Amino acid sequence: MITIICTTNRRPSNSRLVSEFYQTLLTTAGEESTIMDMADLPSDFTSTALYEKAGSNQAFNSLMEQIQNCEKFVFVVPEYNGSFPGVLKAFIDGLKYPASFKDKKCALVGISSGTQGGALALSHLTDIFNYLGMNVLALKVRMPRIEASLIEGKITDKFSLELLDMQVDQFLKF
Amino acid sequence: MITIICTTNRRPSNSRLVSEFYQTLLTTAGEESTIMDMADLPSDFTSTALYEKAGSNQAFNSLMEQIQNCEKFVFVVPEYNGSFPGVLKAFIDGLKYPASFKDKKCALVGISSGTQGGALALSHLTDIFNYLGMNVLALKVRMPRIEASLIEGKITDKFSLELLDMQVDQFLKF
Amino acid sequence: MITIICTTNRRPSNSRLVSEFYQTLLTTAGEESTIMDMADLPSDFTSTALYEKAGSNQAFNSLMEQIQNCEKFVFVVPEYNGSFPGVLKAFIDGLKYPASFKDKKCALVGISSGTQGGALALSHLTDIFNYLGMNVLALKVRMPRIEASLIEGKITDKFSLELLDMQVDQFLKF
Amino acid sequence: MITIICTTNRRPSNSRLVSEFYQTLLTTAGEESTIMDMADLPSDFTSTALYEKAGSNQAFNSLMEQIQNCEKFVFVVPEYNGSFPGVLKAFIDGLKYPASFKDKKCALVGISSGTQGGALALSHLTDIFNYLGMNVLALKVRMPRIEASLIEGKITDKFSLELLDMQVDQFLKF
Repeated sequence: MITIICTTNRRPSNSRLVSEFYQTLLTTAGEESTIMDMADLPSDFTSTALYEKAGSNQAFNSLMEQIQNCEKFVFVVPEYNGSFPGVLKAFIDGLKYPASFKDKKCALVGISSGTQGGALALSHLTDIFNYLGMNVLALKVRMPRIEASLIEGKITDKFSLELLDMQVDQFLKF
Repeated sequence: MITIICTTNRRPSNSRLVSEFYQTLLTTAGEESTIMDMADLPSDFTSTALYEKAGSNQAFNSLMEQIQNCEKFVFVVPEYNGSFPGVLKAFIDGLKYPASFKDKKCALVGISSGTQGGALALSHLTDIFNYLGMNVLALKVRMPRIEASLIEGKITDKFSLELLDMQVDQFLKF
Repeated sequence: MITIICTTNRRPSNSRLVSEFYQTLLTTAGEESTIMDMADLPSDFTSTALYEKAGSNQAFNSLMEQIQNCEKFVFVVPEYNGSFPGVLKAFIDGLKYPASFKDKKCALVGISSGTQGGALALSHLTDIFNYLGMNVLALKVRMPRIEASLIEGKITDKFSLELLDMQVDQFLKF
Repeated sequence: MITIICTTNRRPSNSRLVSEFYQTLLTTAGEESTIMDMADLPSDFTSTALYEKAGSNQAFNSLMEQIQNCEKFVFVVPEYNGSFPGVLKAFIDGLKYPASFKDKKCALVGISSGTQGGALALSHLTDIFNYLGMNVLALKVRMPRIEASLIEGKITDKFSLELLDMQVDQFLKF
C-alpha cells in the first residue's frame, strides 16, 4: 500500500492530475495506493497544529495518522519559487518524529512549467527526508514543461513515461 | 532601513529573541531596522492568500507590502526537520514576483538546538532567494546549540558574537 | 562484500583512519570489506584517465574495475572547503556510466575539524550519487570536531559510535 | 578586470567556447577580462600541489597567483555527473584561504547537454564559494541543451542571450 502525496494545496492543480495518473501506473503494476492531497489540510493548520499545538487539530491528526500508518510514499512535487511548496514543509513540521517517516521509503516526482523540472526542489526534499530517516529512491523523475506533456490528465511525453515506468518498477522493489 | 524576519510562527521562540538581539547590533551600528514576525501571519493564510487567492487577505497584504517596500533583509532561521520552517516558504509562495525580492539583498542567520546550525536550511534558502533574484551575503552565521549561547536574550558565545559583528559590518556595505 | 572508500588523496589522513575503523565495525558485524584509497589514484589521472582518455590509464582502470565489481560502498568524506574532496569527484568523472554506480547502494560518513561534520558535503554527494542511480542510505553519520573524537585510530565519542553502529546495522539490510 | 574560468580540463570543450563568447560580451560592455583554463592545470597537480604540498608546484602557483590578484570571476561550468567538474574542486582544494576568494565576487554560468543546465552544479558551487566568503551573483545563467544553442562559437538561443546580457550588466555593478 502506497500513499501518493499531492504536495500543493492549490486547487485545481497539475500535481493532482499527475498524482492521479501515477495511481493508474501503480494500479497497472498491481499495487494498491491512495492519494493524500495537501489541499485537504485544515485552512488554519499553521496556527492550530504545529509545535506546542501538535495533536489538537483533529483534521490534521487524521492526515498525520495516515502518514504514520503507511510505509511507502510517492511525492508529486511542483516547483514553486525554485523549491517545493511551503505548505508541504509546514505539514511536515507538524508531524511526529520518528513515527512519521523514519525507516520508511519514498519516491519523488518533480513537475515544472519551466525547464528545471524541480531539480533543486527534489534535492531539498531529499535532504529533509534523509534527515528524518526516510530512504529516497535514487531515480527521481523530473518533468519540465509539464503543460506540454500533460494532456487530458495523461503524461504524453515518451521520455517521461519511460522514466515513470522505471521508477514504479524500482520503487516496488525498493 | 533593514527588515529582520523572524522566520518561524512559533511563539515564543528563540528566533524572535535572536531577531531582537540582531536589531540591537544594527542599532549599535547606526542602522535603522524593523522586525517582521512570521507569528503575525494570518492563521488561515495558506488557504486565503496563496496562488489564485493572492491579494485577497488584507493582513497578508500588509506584510507583503512591507516586503515590497524594503531593499535589505536579515532572515533569522531556526532549523526545523533539517531545513527552514515551512511557514516561511508558504509565505514566500504568496508574495509577488518580481516586486518582493528581485535585485534586493539579504543576510542569513541560522540557529539550531543540534550541531548543524542550519547549514542545510541556509543552503536551501540561498537557492530559493537566488532563484528569485535576491543576492545573499556569503557570510552566513550558523549558531548550533543555541540554548547554551542565548542567555536572557543575548548571544553570549564569543565566536558567534564575532561572526555576527562581521556579518553586520559586511551587510551594511553589501 | 563492501568497498570502503577513503575519499581524500591526502596522506596521512584522518579519513584513512576512520576508514580502517569502519572496517573493524563491518568485521565485527560479520561482513567482509576492502578499503579503496583515493591516495592510490595515479598522480596524473586528471590528464590521462578522464573524458576521451577514459580507459587508457591502467592503474586507474584497476580502481575502476574494483568499483564496477562491487555493489555496496561506504564513503568516508572529509569536509574540504565546505564540500567533499575534489579528487573524489574527478575520480567519479573518469568512471563509466552506468556500470559503476547505477542500481547500487552506499552509505556516507562525514568528518570535519569544524562544527559542520560535512553536512553540505554529504548533501552534494547524495545529489551526485542519486543522479548516477545509486541509492544512498538515509542515515548519514556526521562527525564534527573529529580530532577530539579520533584517538589512536578509534572513534571515542559515544554519540558517534552509536550512530556508526546504527548505520552499519541499517546498511547491511539496505 | 575579470577572470573567466573555464572549469573543465577537457580539450576541446564547449565550456572553452562559451568562455570565449562570454569574453566578447564583456569586451562589448567595455570590461577587460582574461580566461583561465583548467586545461592548463599541471597534469599531476592532485599529487604535487595540494594540502601539505601546497606551494611546491610552480605551474600551479602561477594559476594560484592569478586567482589571488583578481577580485571578480565568471565561472563557466559544464554539468558532469549531476554537478560541476571534479578538477575545479581539486583546484580549489589547492588554493590558499583566505587570499583566493574571500570578500570577492563571482557570477556563474551553467551548461549541459541535458535539460538541467547545471542547476545542481551551480547550487553546489554557490555553497562552496559562500563558505569561502565569496559573494555569488543571484542571477545564474543555465543553458540546457547547449549543443543546439552553441553554433560556431556563438550562443544563438535568444533567451540565453538575454540572460547573459542581464548577467553581464548586473555583474559589472555587483
